[in-house]
Amino acid sequence: MTEPLFRRLALLGIGLVGSSIARVARERGGLADEVVANARTEATLARVRALGIADRTELDPTRAVEGADCVILCAPVGAYAALAQATAPHLAPGCILTDVGSTKQSVIRDVGPLVPEGVHFVPAHPLAGTEYSGPDAGFSTLFDGRWCLLTPPPGTDPDAVERVAEFWRRCGSMVSTMEPDHHDRVLAIVSHLPHLIAFTICGTADDLEGESRQEVLQFAASGFRDFTRIAASDPVMWRDVFLNNREALLEMLARFTEDAQAMARAVRWGDATYIEDRILRGRKIRQSLIELKQA
Amino acid sequence: MTEPLFRRLALLGIGLVGSSIARVARERGGLADEVVANARTEATLARVRALGIADRTELDPTRAVEGADCVILCAPVGAYAALAQATAPHLAPGCILTDVGSTKQSVIRDVGPLVPEGVHFVPAHPLAGTEYSGPDAGFSTLFDGRWCLLTPPPGTDPDAVERVAEFWRRCGSMVSTMEPDHHDRVLAIVSHLPHLIAFTICGTADDLEGESRQEVLQFAASGFRDFTRIAASDPVMWRDVFLNNREALLEMLARFTEDAQAMARAVRWGDATYIEDRILRGRKIRQSLIELKQA
Repeated sequence: MTEPLFRRLALLGIGLVGSSIARVARERGGLADEVVANARTEATLARVRALGIADRTELDPTRAVEGADCVILCAPVGAYAALAQATAPHLAPGCILTDVGSTKQSVIRDVGPLVPEGVHFVPAHPLAGTEYSGPDAGFSTLFDGRWCLLTPPPGTDPDAVERVAEFWRRCGSMVSTMEPDHHDRVLAIVSHLPHLIAFTICGTADDLEGESRQEVLQFAASGFRDFTRIAASDPVMWRDVFLNNREALLEMLARFTEDAQAMARAVRWGDATYIEDRILRGRKIRQSLIELKQA
Repeated sequence: MTEPLFRRLALLGIGLVGSSIARVARERGGLADEVVANARTEATLARVRALGIADRTELDPTRAVEGADCVILCAPVGAYAALAQATAPHLAPGCILTDVGSTKQSVIRDVGPLVPEGVHFVPAHPLAGTEYSGPDAGFSTLFDGRWCLLTPPPGTDPDAVERVAEFWRRCGSMVSTMEPDHHDRVLAIVSHLPHLIAFTICGTADDLEGESRQEVLQFAASGFRDFTRIAASDPVMWRDVFLNNREALLEMLARFTEDAQAMARAVRWGDATYIEDRILRGRKIRQSLIELKQA
């Protein structure tokens, strides 16, 4: 069996992603000798103990990080600043501090200044998830074949970056490094905007008058059903993502809105060629995804 | 075995839906003694013969409908007027003329006035489909457990309506009757708008500058991937749907755009409560769908 990368791994947050990491550690090995789970509530930790996916649970994050050589922030990104504030003085020298958040400039802004001398800060984002949340939702194959993007600040110890990369490879992921602002723009269009749109259209449907609303539910054809699936994702996690990738998200939403208005105009004036051309682009993107095996 | 409902069934158009009907007729029986397939091109009919899903193929729609006691328009809704114009004089007395189009007011507007005395016109819409198209894409379980909505004009022979209802029940569907304008509003929000949005966001992503565009493809997270799946649907069919449900689609798009702008404003000004509330509505709709077993 492969020598584990870390002696003690502390997971601050143990929802879908945190509990999936814990399951990889337990089921595949190679990640850490000991996994310590921390959560905001004792009820969550009780579930973690019942599931048997961590070696130890700690309600106090400062106790969870004690003696850990790897600490992963697995909470909603809006909770990072408070978690880093509380735990920074307790991080062991030489420890790697990393995360799994969907926004990377905000993490560097909120956590970066709090990282003590001698601790290696390597922001990371596994592009994996489902619409389910909580410790029961995780599974050890969540990261298989999915990308994990690292956005280390300039001057980060290359050995620490490589250990985090190896950590994610052992979780089954492909790893790539990116500039944080570029990461946030790409994620705004491939993930954050689609979620914002899915949440919004479900709200639009929910606002319909009585009878129509009932029939929306009854006759949900495939298009709408797919949107509701996306829209079932964790509210606090996504609220924090939107608030912490504001500029890129608003820019992509503005571009999308312009394009939707152009489509509306084409529908109003019966511009069949324009509509068909826009639809064909969607097909082309899909085709490219299939060729890249991302579909 | 059940006595077939019709002696000769003519399918004008043999793509995903038409070829699925043909397969139900072949594999389950109970629909028709003979299935005649018509398509715009000889190439499509050659595929139909190779697949062995019809008893006869006819390139000329007037020959396809000859002697048929049921004719189903299975082409994109924009092609209905020309098909009805050509075939109306050749429809047998007592024949049932129906369709599978996603817009019902336009079908009544385009086809209704052309229906000869003695022919029963029963517009219908099976809420079933995939992102694939053409005669190879069909399968006999496509309609199982899905709704089929009938929108018969006032004064339609109740026996004809019942035969079409029974036809769809034998295809595996649940059947309901609706006013055509109400149908078009409900479908605008559950199906047409989600497709318009999916096509649009794929176009928005396709317009990104070189490097980002490449990474959109490479890192397509789950949100965007689901949108590209919807966006892979047949361009001509959807172009026709948009153009033939203009008023309802534009109204739902306007409502959605207002809601998206309100969300943008909440993101810009950091209104966490508003964002969370809108996300929670999406969840609630999803939960209702699961309870109704539509998810």
